[in-house]
Amino acid sequence: MLRFVTIEGGDGSGKTRQVGLLDEYLNSRGVSRLLTREPGDTPLGKDLRKLLLEGRPESLSDETELFLILADRAQHVREVVEPALGQGKLVVSDRFADSTLAYQGYGRGMDLALLRRLNLMATGGTMPELTIILDCPVEVALARAAKRLDPDAAREYRFESEGVAFQRRVREGFLELAEADPSRCVVVPTDGPEMATQEKMRRIIDERLHESAGG
Amino acid sequence: MLRFVTIEGGDGSGKTRQVGLLDEYLNSRGVSRLLTREPGDTPLGKDLRKLLLEGRPESLSDETELFLILADRAQHVREVVEPALGQGKLVVSDRFADSTLAYQGYGRGMDLALLRRLNLMATGGTMPELTIILDCPVEVALARAAKRLDPDAAREYRFESEGVAFQRRVREGFLELAEADPSRCVVVPTDGPEMATQEKMRRIIDERLHESAGG
Repeated sequence: MLRFVTIEGGDGSGKTRQVGLLDEYLNSRGVSRLLTREPGDTPLGKDLRKLLLEGRPESLSDETELFLILADRAQHVREVVEPALGQGKLVVSDRFADSTLAYQGYGRGMDLALLRRLNLMATGGTMPELTIILDCPVEVALARAAKRLDPDAAREYRFESEGVAFQRRVREGFLELAEADPSRCVVVPTDGPEMATQEKMRRIIDERLHESAGG
Repeated sequence: MLRFVTIEGGDGSGKTRQVGLLDEYLNSRGVSRLLTREPGDTPLGKDLRKLLLEGRPESLSDETELFLILADRAQHVREVVEPALGQGKLVVSDRFADSTLAYQGYGRGMDLALLRRLNLMATGGTMPELTIILDCPVEVALARAAKRLDPDAAREYRFESEGVAFQRRVREGFLELAEADPSRCVVVPTDGPEMATQEKMRRIIDERLHESAGG
């Protein structure tokens, strides 16, 4: 049964825009749903999002960043995701556990087995049945991210100021994660027209919702 | 060589008062030192301390609390403790890694081996050569804590509102930790006169400083 969908992808993958379009579609179809995101969709998360993305994020050590992200996730699952699932809503989260494996594991080189264990602690075992990984070449992503940012705003985007090599490792990470778990993960390219990507996402979700209804 | 001292103990053990008296003594002896504490002695830590001790701490899950504490520690070690050690200062911290084992491990029942691994990640291996564990019966501690708090302020103290059974497990935890690591940990009772406790603490530190100078 499809109850929990996560949308993942590197910076500049067009994720936030695609999640918004997907939400409009689900709304038009009358799907009872909750659109949420990490970090940030709890009162605590809003404070943590500020600490992670604004202020002086460059002063945070890798370990500090990891633990703040896990704290946000632990609270997000218990305060937002689980209650919505309990009400029978389809939960769509912009980023979730895979982001930690891709960014902190592949990107920063932290131990993947340990990160999986910490994710399990943070999520309490609540995991999506479907993860859509939005993917495009890093050059395309960076061009897209650059267009969105004026120079003064750029420093607010910690992840987006990490450089090309980092973003490449993150992209490789997402692709490896998808390959290792093909029943859950679907990779959707985002280097073509926006609505082509969106149509693919809608078809995947419709199929899974249909399977659920049929099964 | 004595470079890093931590002072640990349950709520109402008189820890904060004793740390203050100890600092006065070290100052009078001309010891170049840094007095610090967890959570809170970094810009990030001040925000996290508020989240942990004020606001709606009762709404935080155990896992959220743990990850916030670890984030605070990771930043505290890198931003405060290590630079001070690098300058040759004696660092005295009011709470450190043992508090996580006692409160989250013994108190809340989280896996001790995992907590040790997370502490190692948070501290990067920076550990005190001396830990003074201030200890008194929970009844004495609670009476002391109650005297300090007016009823309206009490809800600010998450740890102190956990109840007697929790505080007993934390106390047992500290005593077991001390027993398991006698070369690092010294238990000092705090149910007698304040200055009797303080004299013991000063003697222990003087001895270790003396050993350092001689060795």
